[in-house]
Amino acid sequence: MSQVFIHKHRVSYAECTVGNHVYYARYLDILEQARGEFFRAAGKTCKELQDLGFIFPVLDCHISYKGPARYDDLLDVQVYLIEVGRVRVSFKYSILNESGKILVTGETTHVCTSLDEKPRRLPEDLTAFCQKFVHDQLLK
Amino acid sequence: MSQVFIHKHRVSYAECTVGNHVYYARYLDILEQARGEFFRAAGKTCKELQDLGFIFPVLDCHISYKGPARYDDLLDVQVYLIEVGRVRVSFKYSILNESGKILVTGETTHVCTSLDEKPRRLPEDLTAFCQKFVHDQLLK
Amino acid sequence: MSQVFIHKHRVSYAECTVGNHVYYARYLDILEQARGEFFRAAGKTCKELQDLGFIFPVLDCHISYKGPARYDDLLDVQVYLIEVGRVRVSFKYSILNESGKILVTGETTHVCTSLDEKPRRLPEDLTAFCQKFVHDQLLK
Amino acid sequence: MSQVFIHKHRVSYAECTVGNHVYYARYLDILEQARGEFFRAAGKTCKELQDLGFIFPVLDCHISYKGPARYDDLLDVQVYLIEVGRVRVSFKYSILNESGKILVTGETTHVCTSLDEKPRRLPEDLTAFCQKFVHDQLLK
Repeated sequence: MSQVFIHKHRVSYAECTVGNHVYYARYLDILEQARGEFFRAAGKTCKELQDLGFIFPVLDCHISYKGPARYDDLLDVQVYLIEVGRVRVSFKYSILNESGKILVTGETTHVCTSLDEKPRRLPEDLTAFCQKFVHDQLLK
Repeated sequence: MSQVFIHKHRVSYAECTVGNHVYYARYLDILEQARGEFFRAAGKTCKELQDLGFIFPVLDCHISYKGPARYDDLLDVQVYLIEVGRVRVSFKYSILNESGKILVTGETTHVCTSLDEKPRRLPEDLTAFCQKFVHDQLLK
Repeated sequence: MSQVFIHKHRVSYAECTVGNHVYYARYLDILEQARGEFFRAAGKTCKELQDLGFIFPVLDCHISYKGPARYDDLLDVQVYLIEVGRVRVSFKYSILNESGKILVTGETTHVCTSLDEKPRRLPEDLTAFCQKFVHDQLLK
Repeated sequence: MSQVFIHKHRVSYAECTVGNHVYYARYLDILEQARGEFFRAAGKTCKELQDLGFIFPVLDCHISYKGPARYDDLLDVQVYLIEVGRVRVSFKYSILNESGKILVTGETTHVCTSLDEKPRRLPEDLTAFCQKFVHDQLLK
């Protein structure tokens, strides 16, 4: 049975813009933090993976904005996967506020490379961990 | 004949991250600056439009990363449109470095609303200006 | 006996710049998060205080950089006060890494105002809470 | 006669926060951009200096906030120096809006180091350029 990884995020003033809502680019910062915690939970942090010669540049990012996150909101960032390939991995995200309303959905695709950015097979233990979070269908 | 709007951007340290390249979220900041200049060229700034009761929340954003922008690069941000509807407008962007290499392509879709976020028809003069920048086909 | 308030912060890629260290401006974002948690602990969040007509604009900020914070560092942000006046409050901060090394010290001075930015006496319960964190001497 | 270096900056939404003013940390981003242009005018960009083995880490930063910069303001960032030592340089800044009102004053102190962060004498031509911008007294 597939799982969803949850990362909690508290909205700060630094992330908000005119009109009191999170600036559209800042959600990508939040998704990066969530991915960082996902990797940590998978057994090796991004830093440890980098020391082992694995990095995960973003190829593509797609975000849909459905409602504003506000200052001091405590957000649930749900992380799961839609594809774990040999050298590619695609994450899917939903960001919800405390009322359970979905504010943002997103997707990022990454390639696994060596430090000189040559494509490289994902570490086996990472692939195994990721498999548990793969969903055949998109969650709403 | 359709046109492309150009905004120049100099990369600062604030925009870069580990590995000396622009952080993936910062490109959205740069696209916002380019849209701001596009609106100014169209005759009214975002601020003036807001004072007239028009705002343009982002519904959707899609970015493809093709190569890294580096500290101090002078970027060309090309802006054009793929759709100007009654209440919606979709911008398309290409970011190139000084060698003419495309580093990033992107697309943002906005809805035109009143300040209380009810859909509202685009101002006529803005629509007319935008029409000049509509491309039937995607540029590469 | 006076206390120190502790806020934990995990460094993300978004906060780092070329050379793999936290960008000098981002520490101010981190201090704001720490102040937000301090206010929450004091009984009312900044948002609740704002709803009651109290805001705390920054008058002055002073930061000393003693060593770099790196990606994925788990930082201790120590918060205490050096002055709680009738309409002013001065926070003092030390940011330490997991080895206990002080990376940054800082100070911010805020004025308490109404929403139209007229000076206003600090709420009594906030003053009482703050008093517990006042240190006569600067901590190292 | 001593000079002042001017850098122009247009405020974007990305830099603003709740209440429609520039977020207090973002001014440091703006000062970095101004320093970058100052170095370019001095003959070598920060990137070129880095390639020659000179970097300028910030030791200390002090900002006073006197009034809010707003979205779309075109700011004048005035840069001058208060000290050019053998291995240290202190910049002073005033940020003004189009009405000539001073919104922010600031000061940053930098040490010149080699890439492995050992103190290093400033390049001679940089020192000579800087001398032209040294003011004995603080400007208002």
